[in-house]
Amino acid sequence: MEAKEILEAYRAGKLTDTAVLAALQEKYREETLHLGFASLDLDRAERCGFPEVVFCAGKTEGQCVEILSALMKKYDNVIGTRADAGIYDRLKNKIPHVLYDSTAAMIYQHKDNRIRNGERTIAVITAGTGDIPVAEEAALTAEIMGNRVRRIYDVGVAGLHRLLARQGEIRAANVCVVVAGMEGALASVVGGLVDKPVIAVPTSIGYGANFHGLSALLSMLNSCAAGVSVVNIDNGFGAGRLAAMINEMR
Amino acid sequence: MEAKEILEAYRAGKLTDTAVLAALQEKYREETLHLGFASLDLDRAERCGFPEVVFCAGKTEGQCVEILSALMKKYDNVIGTRADAGIYDRLKNKIPHVLYDSTAAMIYQHKDNRIRNGERTIAVITAGTGDIPVAEEAALTAEIMGNRVRRIYDVGVAGLHRLLARQGEIRAANVCVVVAGMEGALASVVGGLVDKPVIAVPTSIGYGANFHGLSALLSMLNSCAAGVSVVNIDNGFGAGRLAAMINEMR
Amino acid sequence: MEAKEILEAYRAGKLTDTAVLAALQEKYREETLHLGFASLDLDRAERCGFPEVVFCAGKTEGQCVEILSALMKKYDNVIGTRADAGIYDRLKNKIPHVLYDSTAAMIYQHKDNRIRNGERTIAVITAGTGDIPVAEEAALTAEIMGNRVRRIYDVGVAGLHRLLARQGEIRAANVCVVVAGMEGALASVVGGLVDKPVIAVPTSIGYGANFHGLSALLSMLNSCAAGVSVVNIDNGFGAGRLAAMINEMR
Amino acid sequence: MEAKEILEAYRAGKLTDTAVLAALQEKYREETLHLGFASLDLDRAERCGFPEVVFCAGKTEGQCVEILSALMKKYDNVIGTRADAGIYDRLKNKIPHVLYDSTAAMIYQHKDNRIRNGERTIAVITAGTGDIPVAEEAALTAEIMGNRVRRIYDVGVAGLHRLLARQGEIRAANVCVVVAGMEGALASVVGGLVDKPVIAVPTSIGYGANFHGLSALLSMLNSCAAGVSVVNIDNGFGAGRLAAMINEMR
Amino acid sequence: MEAKEILEAYRAGKLTDTAVLAALQEKYREETLHLGFASLDLDRAERCGFPEVVFCAGKTEGQCVEILSALMKKYDNVIGTRADAGIYDRLKNKIPHVLYDSTAAMIYQHKDNRIRNGERTIAVITAGTGDIPVAEEAALTAEIMGNRVRRIYDVGVAGLHRLLARQGEIRAANVCVVVAGMEGALASVVGGLVDKPVIAVPTSIGYGANFHGLSALLSMLNSCAAGVSVVNIDNGFGAGRLAAMINEMR
Amino acid sequence: MEAKEILEAYRAGKLTDTAVLAALQEKYREETLHLGFASLDLDRAERCGFPEVVFCAGKTEGQCVEILSALMKKYDNVIGTRADAGIYDRLKNKIPHVLYDSTAAMIYQHKDNRIRNGERTIAVITAGTGDIPVAEEAALTAEIMGNRVRRIYDVGVAGLHRLLARQGEIRAANVCVVVAGMEGALASVVGGLVDKPVIAVPTSIGYGANFHGLSALLSMLNSCAAGVSVVNIDNGFGAGRLAAMINEMR
Amino acid sequence: MEAKEILEAYRAGKLTDTAVLAALQEKYREETLHLGFASLDLDRAERCGFPEVVFCAGKTEGQCVEILSALMKKYDNVIGTRADAGIYDRLKNKIPHVLYDSTAAMIYQHKDNRIRNGERTIAVITAGTGDIPVAEEAALTAEIMGNRVRRIYDVGVAGLHRLLARQGEIRAANVCVVVAGMEGALASVVGGLVDKPVIAVPTSIGYGANFHGLSALLSMLNSCAAGVSVVNIDNGFGAGRLAAMINEMR
Amino acid sequence: MEAKEILEAYRAGKLTDTAVLAALQEKYREETLHLGFASLDLDRAERCGFPEVVFCAGKTEGQCVEILSALMKKYDNVIGTRADAGIYDRLKNKIPHVLYDSTAAMIYQHKDNRIRNGERTIAVITAGTGDIPVAEEAALTAEIMGNRVRRIYDVGVAGLHRLLARQGEIRAANVCVVVAGMEGALASVVGGLVDKPVIAVPTSIGYGANFHGLSALLSMLNSCAAGVSVVNIDNGFGAGRLAAMINEMR
Repeated sequence: MEAKEILEAYRAGKLTDTAVLAALQEKYREETLHLGFASLDLDRAERCGFPEVVFCAGKTEGQCVEILSALMKKYDNVIGTRADAGIYDRLKNKIPHVLYDSTAAMIYQHKDNRIRNGERTIAVITAGTGDIPVAEEAALTAEIMGNRVRRIYDVGVAGLHRLLARQGEIRAANVCVVVAGMEGALASVVGGLVDKPVIAVPTSIGYGANFHGLSALLSMLNSCAAGVSVVNIDNGFGAGRLAAMINEMR
Repeated sequence: MEAKEILEAYRAGKLTDTAVLAALQEKYREETLHLGFASLDLDRAERCGFPEVVFCAGKTEGQCVEILSALMKKYDNVIGTRADAGIYDRLKNKIPHVLYDSTAAMIYQHKDNRIRNGERTIAVITAGTGDIPVAEEAALTAEIMGNRVRRIYDVGVAGLHRLLARQGEIRAANVCVVVAGMEGALASVVGGLVDKPVIAVPTSIGYGANFHGLSALLSMLNSCAAGVSVVNIDNGFGAGRLAAMINEMR
Repeated sequence: MEAKEILEAYRAGKLTDTAVLAALQEKYREETLHLGFASLDLDRAERCGFPEVVFCAGKTEGQCVEILSALMKKYDNVIGTRADAGIYDRLKNKIPHVLYDSTAAMIYQHKDNRIRNGERTIAVITAGTGDIPVAEEAALTAEIMGNRVRRIYDVGVAGLHRLLARQGEIRAANVCVVVAGMEGALASVVGGLVDKPVIAVPTSIGYGANFHGLSALLSMLNSCAAGVSVVNIDNGFGAGRLAAMINEMR
Repeated sequence: MEAKEILEAYRAGKLTDTAVLAALQEKYREETLHLGFASLDLDRAERCGFPEVVFCAGKTEGQCVEILSALMKKYDNVIGTRADAGIYDRLKNKIPHVLYDSTAAMIYQHKDNRIRNGERTIAVITAGTGDIPVAEEAALTAEIMGNRVRRIYDVGVAGLHRLLARQGEIRAANVCVVVAGMEGALASVVGGLVDKPVIAVPTSIGYGANFHGLSALLSMLNSCAAGVSVVNIDNGFGAGRLAAMINEMR
Repeated sequence: MEAKEILEAYRAGKLTDTAVLAALQEKYREETLHLGFASLDLDRAERCGFPEVVFCAGKTEGQCVEILSALMKKYDNVIGTRADAGIYDRLKNKIPHVLYDSTAAMIYQHKDNRIRNGERTIAVITAGTGDIPVAEEAALTAEIMGNRVRRIYDVGVAGLHRLLARQGEIRAANVCVVVAGMEGALASVVGGLVDKPVIAVPTSIGYGANFHGLSALLSMLNSCAAGVSVVNIDNGFGAGRLAAMINEMR
Repeated sequence: MEAKEILEAYRAGKLTDTAVLAALQEKYREETLHLGFASLDLDRAERCGFPEVVFCAGKTEGQCVEILSALMKKYDNVIGTRADAGIYDRLKNKIPHVLYDSTAAMIYQHKDNRIRNGERTIAVITAGTGDIPVAEEAALTAEIMGNRVRRIYDVGVAGLHRLLARQGEIRAANVCVVVAGMEGALASVVGGLVDKPVIAVPTSIGYGANFHGLSALLSMLNSCAAGVSVVNIDNGFGAGRLAAMINEMR
Repeated sequence: MEAKEILEAYRAGKLTDTAVLAALQEKYREETLHLGFASLDLDRAERCGFPEVVFCAGKTEGQCVEILSALMKKYDNVIGTRADAGIYDRLKNKIPHVLYDSTAAMIYQHKDNRIRNGERTIAVITAGTGDIPVAEEAALTAEIMGNRVRRIYDVGVAGLHRLLARQGEIRAANVCVVVAGMEGALASVVGGLVDKPVIAVPTSIGYGANFHGLSALLSMLNSCAAGVSVVNIDNGFGAGRLAAMINEMR
Repeated sequence: MEAKEILEAYRAGKLTDTAVLAALQEKYREETLHLGFASLDLDRAERCGFPEVVFCAGKTEGQCVEILSALMKKYDNVIGTRADAGIYDRLKNKIPHVLYDSTAAMIYQHKDNRIRNGERTIAVITAGTGDIPVAEEAALTAEIMGNRVRRIYDVGVAGLHRLLARQGEIRAANVCVVVAGMEGALASVVGGLVDKPVIAVPTSIGYGANFHGLSALLSMLNSCAAGVSVVNIDNGFGAGRLAAMINEMR
C-alpha cells in the first residue's frame, strides 16, 4: 500500500488511528528485504540512484550468493565488490548474466549497458602498474553505471613527461579519478592541471613507511591543489560511484 | 575451613597467632584451582555473578580442554570464547552437554537455561552482515546468562529507513548492544533514539583507513549521544556480559 | 497539532493528501528550537530521558548564554559542560537559579532536586587527586539527574590497601564510575571486585607515553575484567549520564 | 609573446633555434609573478577556474598583504584563508573593496557577485554549533565563486528528527557539504539520504579520543554510504571550492 | 698479543710508531669472530657478564647453526632466542649438550648449571595463561644464568585474591618479572606490593585495541608505582637477563 | 590496634566474630590519611621502602601544600615532583626544612642525609645539555634516598670519544641511568659497555619526528643491548627511585 | 623527430602552427613505451642517470617479465627489485644475461661492469646479520651502477669495539650506507665518526615496539649527528642508488 | 701530548705501562671542553669537517651564551640553531662578529667567508612561502660552510609551470634541497627531473591531517623517485650541512 492508499483507507474508516500510524511505519519495513543475516535496502536505487552494492569481504560465500541473487533478479545492473571467484562459480548457474572480473575482484551484472552521459568522460589515472586493480574497480563501477571511462595508467610523477604527454586527455575529462600508492603525489599534480573535480584514491601499494596506504592517504588529504577530495585506501568502488554521480550532474 | 571456623579454632586455642593469620591467607588460595599453567578463579561466580570465562585464543588446545573441563564440572553454565572447533572435538567426549557455535566461535555449556529477567529484552543490533559473528558472541553470551535477546541485523545508517522500521523493537529493549565496523555511526544514531544504555562494539570489519577497527572505535568513543559506552574492538563477549549485568538490575 | 489531531483533521476533510503528509513532517521541525546557529532538540527529554546537555567548549560565550537561557526556561534541570566562569557571569542575571561549579567546569540549574532512585548509590572512584575534576563532572551530572553519589577519591592501585579498605562501599554501590589517568589499572581491579557495571573514564592526567590519555584509554578498553565499558577521555559527563541511566533501571 | 607569435618570429628568421626553445620556456616564467618570497601563479584562473587562493597561516602579515594586493588588483574575486584581522587592517586602506569575515577567518574581495549557477544550490550542513566556523569558510568560498548556499546548522545525529525535518532542503540541493567533528556520523547519514555528491569535512571539534579531528576523519573515510568523499580536517575552503566546481558542471 | 706485550715490543724497538698504533687497533678486531655474515663479539662475556645471545628470527637456519656452534664450543652456557625446532635438529648432531624448549622457543646449552646467587629468587609472574611462552623465555634465561626462579602464573588483577594468595612468595623474591598482555595492570599492582625492582614485560596477547601489545606497553610505562621499568613487547629474554643482572648485585 | 592485639581481644571474648573481621578490615583504612581529595598511603614507606612521592602536576597548589605538609611532618625525607616554585613559597613558612630545586622542579625535605649504600655509585648520564632537568630529577631523587650519584652530562654518541673518555667512571658505577632525547642511542651504547643494569629515560628533547619523546622511547625499548629497561618519557623520578632500589640490593 | 627537426620542418612550411605544437607534445609521448599496464620512462637514463628500475612487488609475474624484457633489450644494466625467483625462471630463456640474487631478491642485467668511480668506495654497514638482505640490495645496486663496495656487516653498537676495529675502513669510504633495525643507533654513531654523507636505511628487523621498522626510522630521522639522511624502511635500493649518485660527484 | 709523544715518553722510560694506557685514554678527554652542563666536542671539526653546531632550543640562555662564546673564540665559523634574539643580545657585546638571522632563527659567526666549492651550486627549493624559514636555515648553513646557494621559493606542484620555468636552474645545481610541508609532493617531482642528490626536508606547515609534518615526512620517505633522502621535520640545518658535505665531494 502506498502512503496515499493508507490515508484513503483511513479516511474511509477502514483503519483506526493506531492502525494508520502502524501502517505508515510498516511501509519502511517493506522497503527492506529481510534475509535474516541481511536487510536489503530496496529503496536505495530510488533514493541514491543505484541499487545497494554488496561488499563481499567478511560475508560467507553463501550469504553473498543469496544477497546477489536477490538483487540481480530485481535490478539490471548490480555490483559485488571484493568478491572471490568462488562466489562467481556458485552464482553463474543461477544467474545467467553474471560476470566476474578477477583484476578488480568484482562480480556484476551489466544488462543495461547504455551510455547515459554521452561524451562526458571519466579519466581513471594511476601512478603505477601496481595500482591497476584498484583503478579497475573504479573504472568498471563507472562503466556499469553508464559512463565512458578513459584509462591512463602508470604516469607517476617520477617521470613527469609521461603525465604531460597525456595532459590533453586528462584535461578533456569531466571528472578525474587518481589512484596512487607510495607518496600519492600524483593527485596534487593532476589537481593543479585541471578545473574539474579530482577524486583521489590512496592505495596500499608500497612498503615500510607507507604503513599500508597511510602515506598516500595523508598526502592526498593535504593536497595543496583545490578540487581534490579523498576516499578510503584502496576504495576503487567509492571513487567510481562518486565519479559517476558527478558525471551525471547537469 | 570457613573464616568463622578458623577464628573458633583460634579462640579454642587450637591455632597459634601465626597460624591463624596463615590460615586466613590460605583461604584465598583455596578459591583458586591450580592447574600449573592456570589459576582458576573459583570465587568469580560468587563475586562477579558468573564463573570465569575462558579466552581460548593464545592458549594451547590442551590447556583449553583442561580448564574448560574443570569449570564445566563445577558450574552449569560455562563459556569459552574465540575457540576453535578442535577444542570442541576433544571436549565433547568428556563433557556430554558441551556445545559449539561456529559463527560466534564459542564453546559452552548451557545446562541451566531458565530465563532470569522475564520480558526484559536485550537488543543486539548490527550495521552490516559482516558484523554478525561479533554480534552472535554477544547474543549467545547474554542468552547463556539467562536473558531474552532480540537480534536486529544489517540496519546500518546508509539506509536509515531500515533502522527506523525497527525503531519500535529497539525502543522496547531494556539495553541495546550496537555492533558496527567501518565508521561505526550506528551507535550514535541508536543512542539518540533511546533512553536506555547503549553498549557499542566496534568491529574490525572494513579496510584501509579502518585500521583494523580503529575508525569505529574512535567514532563510538566520540559519540555525541549520551548513554553510549564502548568495549574493545570485536569484543562481543564483553558487551553481552555487560548487557546481562545491566538487565539484571532492579 | 498532535499526530492524532492531524489525522482527524484529515479525515474531516480539512486537509488534502499532500497537506497531511506535510503536516506530519512539520511536526519534526516543531521539536527543534531554531536559534540560527543552533537547533535545540526539544524532544530530547521525552525521547532520551533528560534535556539536551550543552557542550560549551567551541561555542562563543554568546551562543552558550542564548542556548542555556532557552533550555533553563523550559526545563527545571539543565546542564552545560566545559563552561568558563564568564558564561556564568552573564547568565546569573537572567536566570536566577543558575549555578556554577569551577572544579567540574559545569554550569547548571538544579531546581528539581528530588532523589529519584532511593538508596541506590553510584560510586565515583578516582585513582588520584588529579582525576577529581573529571570525577566531579560525573558526580554532579548524576546528582542533578536525581541520584545519590558516593565519592571515593585517590585509591589507585599503587597502594592496594586504600582500595581494599573501601571495598565495602564499592561493593554496595549499584553502579561504579572509575576515573583514572596514567595506566588506568584501577578500572580492571574494581571490575574484578564487583558484580555491577563499571563505567571507566580515562583521563589525560599523566605525561610522556600517556599521550594525553591514550594509555589509560587503551588499558580500559583491554580490561581483563568483564562488565567494564569505556567512555571518551576526560568525559565525566558521559559517565555520569550513563550511570544515572543504569541506576534508574528496574 | 604568445606561443604562436614565437613560432612566427622563428619562421620569419628572427629567432635562432636556441632562441625559440628559450622563448617557449620563458613563457612559463611569465605566468608567475615573482615577489621573492612568493611565485604567484597567474595562470591558475585560466587553468583551474579561479585565481590562486592564499593560505595566510605561516606567512608573515607583510607577505600576506603584498600577495593579496597583487591578486586583488588583477582579479575581481580573491580569497585569503586563515587570516588574522591584522591583515585586513593593513589592507583596507590599499584595497577599497576588501572584506573580512571573522567567523570564517577569511579576507576576500567579492566584486563580481553574480550568481553563476542559477537555482542550483549547495547545502552546507553542520552537526553542531562548534562546527560553524569551518562551515562558514566553505559557504563563503562557494558564494564568492558565484553559488547559492543553503546553511543547515546543528542537525547532528543524536537528534535525528532535526535532520529529517530538513530532509527536503537537503535532497533539493545539488551538492552537500557536511561539516562534523566528534564521531562525524552525519556524513554517512546524509550520504544515505541523497543521490548527489557529499563532501565531508571533519573538524577538530571534540576532545580526548577525538585526537584533533582524527576520529571524524577516519569515520568519514570509512563511510558505508557511497558518494561521500573527504577533505582535510577543518578544510572548509577545500570543500567550498570543490562544491563550487561540481555545481558548475553541466 | 696483549696490550702490555705490544707496548713491550714497542719499547724494545721491535715495533715502529705506526706499527704499535696499528697493533693496538688490531686487538679490537681479535675480539670479534668474523663469519662473513656475522661479527661475533667474543669480548661480551668479559665486558657484560654473559656471552652474546643470538636472536635467531631474521637469520637463516644455516647462519644460526654456524653462529651457535661457534659460541657453544667456546662457552658453557649459550642462548639462542626465537629459534625454530629446525635449528635444533641441525645442531644436535654437532653439539651434544644442546637443548631446545619449544614453549620458550629457545635453543641453549646449559653445561654449567651451578646456582650463583644462593637463595635469592627471581619471581616470574604472569597475568594469564597466554603469557606463559614469554614468561618461560624470561625464566629459562635467568636459570641458565645461574638463578633460582619462582613461577607464579595466571594471577591477573580480575581476580585479585589469586594474587594476594601468593603475596608471600612475591614479597620474598629479590626481583620480580611481571609478564602481562591486555591492559597490563598487573605490573602496577605488583609494583605497589613490593620494595624490590619490578621488570615489566608487555605481551602481544589480546586483540582489538590491544594493537599488538601497545596497550600493555603504554600501561606499564605509565605505571603509578615506582620501581617499575619496562622492556620491549614480548621480550622475555631481556627481562630475564636484566633480572639475573640485578640478582647478582651485592 | 595491631593484628595480634585484635586477635587477642577476640580470644579474650572482647570481640564478636563479626567485630573481629571488621576490625581487621579497619586496619587497612588506618594506613591511609584521608584528606578528602587525597588518600595518603601511610604504609608505603614500610611496604615499598620510601614514603609516597607526590606528583604535583594536575593538583591545585593548595592540595600540594596540604599533602606535602602532612608527609613532611611524618617523614624525614619527602619528595614532590613537577612542582612549581609557588608551592615552595607557601610551604617554606610551615615546614622549615623544605627545599626547592628549580632545574629538577622538585620540592623536598632531606633531613636524613646519611649515605646508605657506601661507595656504591649511581651514574646519571645525559646525551645532551637539554636533558639535564630530567637527569637532575633522577639524581636528586637518588641522593635524597641515600645514594652517591656521579653526574656525567652531554656525552651523546655524535662524539663518541666524549663517552669513551669517561668509560672508567661509567664502568665503575653500580647502576647507570641514561637520559637521552632525539634518537636515544646512548642507552644502547652504554648498555654495551657495562655489566650492570641500565635504566633508560627517554626525554622529549628534540623536534619534528621526535614526536614529544616517542623516537627515544621506541629506540630504548628496542635496544640491542641486554640489561636495558625503560621508564616513561621525562620520568627522571622513576629512574632515580629504581636506581636507588637496585643500589640497595645486597 | 628531434625538437630541432620539428622546428626546421615548421620553418620550411611543412608544418602548420597547430601541427608544430602537437609535434612538440608528441615528443613527450615517444619517450614512453606503452605496454597498456605500464608506461616505461625511456628518458629516465638520460634525465636521471640510470634507466627506470622496476619495483616488482605488486605487479603480476607476466607484467614484470614484459617490462624487464623491454628494458634489458634497450639497456646494458637493468634492475628489478623485490623480485621472486619465478620471474627469473621465465626471463632467463628470453634474456641470456639476466641474473638473480636471492638474498637481495634482485633480478638484474649487468653487461657493462666497468668501475666508473675509480678507488672511491661505498661502505655498506649493517648492525646485525638479519639486516643483510637489505644491505645486499643496496650493495648490489651500487655495484651494478659501477661502484666499488665495501661490506662491513654485524657491527652494531652493543659491541662497540667491533665497529671501532673497522673504523679505518669506514673513514676511508667516500659514502656510507648504514643499515640497521631495532633501535637504529648505528647511524648516529657512524655519523659521528666520519666527514662524509651517511645514508641511513631503517629495517623492519625486530619485534614488538619496533612496529615494523618505525623505531629505527624515527631514531635515524632524529640523529644527533649531522650528515645523516634517511630513506624508506627496508629500502636498500634507494640507498644504493643515492650512494652511487653521490659517489659520482666530482 | 700527541699519541706519538706519549709513546716516545714511554719508550724513553718516562711512563710506566699503566701510565701510557692512562695517557692515551686521557687524550680523549682533552678533546672535550667541560663546562659542567656541556662537554664540547673539540675534535668535531677535524673528524667531521665542521665544529659542533649548537642546538639552542631546550638550553637556557646562559648555557647557550657560554657554549657559543667558547666555540666562537676557537673557530672562525660557528652556528647556533633555533636561537632566540635574546641570546644574540647577550652575545654581541662579547663576540664582535656574531650575527643573527631572525627568519632562520640562527645565531652565527662567519669570519671565513671564502667560497670553497667554486661554481658548484646548491639549490634550495620551497613549495610555499610558509616553508621559507626552514629553507633559510638550510641556505644560511650551506653558505657559512662556503657554498653558493640558489634560492627557488614557492614553486609547489599545484602550479607545475612555476617549477618547469625554473627547471634550468634546478638541473644546473649540484645538489638540491627541497623544503615542503602539506603533502610534500615537490620532492618526488624534483627527484624525477634531476640526476643529482635531492635532500628532502618535510616541514610542519599545514594543518589537520598534516599532523605537524607527518604527512610530508611520510610522502618524502615513500618517494617514487630514486635519489631522494629525508631529514627530520623542519630540520633545515641538517639538510644544509649534508648538502655542503656532498657539494665538497670530488
